[in-house]
Amino acid sequence: MKGIILFGHGARNPEYIEPFRRIQAVVAAKLPGVPVEIGFLELTQPPLETSIECLARRGVTHVKVVPIFFAPGRHVLKDLPQLLGNAIDLHPGIEFEVAECVGVVDGVIEAMAAHAVAGT
Amino acid sequence: MKGIILFGHGARNPEYIEPFRRIQAVVAAKLPGVPVEIGFLELTQPPLETSIECLARRGVTHVKVVPIFFAPGRHVLKDLPQLLGNAIDLHPGIEFEVAECVGVVDGVIEAMAAHAVAGT
Repeated sequence: MKGIILFGHGARNPEYIEPFRRIQAVVAAKLPGVPVEIGFLELTQPPLETSIECLARRGVTHVKVVPIFFAPGRHVLKDLPQLLGNAIDLHPGIEFEVAECVGVVDGVIEAMAAHAVAGT
Repeated sequence: MKGIILFGHGARNPEYIEPFRRIQAVVAAKLPGVPVEIGFLELTQPPLETSIECLARRGVTHVKVVPIFFAPGRHVLKDLPQLLGNAIDLHPGIEFEVAECVGVVDGVIEAMAAHAVAGT
């Protein structure tokens, strides 16, 4: 059974989670039956570890982590592999896959550019 | 004359700027004659102040700042207004406008969700 985690940075503002919830809702609607969790590196709840734990309890055996980052920096290249290294030890029955950062994907680049252009 | 600045966080990894350059190229292609700059809060060059200075030297009188952030947190709600407050003092002839964060825009949410779904 597959599961998806949207992995974000986190922030102090409690409303920061809202756009992540919107992505989660769209993904869940497109993939009925596939659990979709949100997990953060810091500041915003829940942490990535908790999201993985939730999927493990639901019997997920393959987790795709989607970094909701604009570009691969330290958080994606160093912090995420470290967190997943710990997760592999804790959940040996789960296979982890890391998708590309959303920010390097053509369709996302196009959509961001369209927003920048809108009204100009 | 209008100008656009794509405002990002910045990171230590020098390749971090690449997706921003791709957005810049798409926007520039859609709006010939409108100067499009990239400016960062920290770590990545150039800082926002420098991008504003570049536009000012080109005679831009209206700058639209597009926050390349997923959600409004401290950087967008506090740091950006502070930077723009200083910019208004330095460049009284320029009118500044701040667009919505890319991450709260429907089309961007849809594109990120499509990426999360792809291959699942």
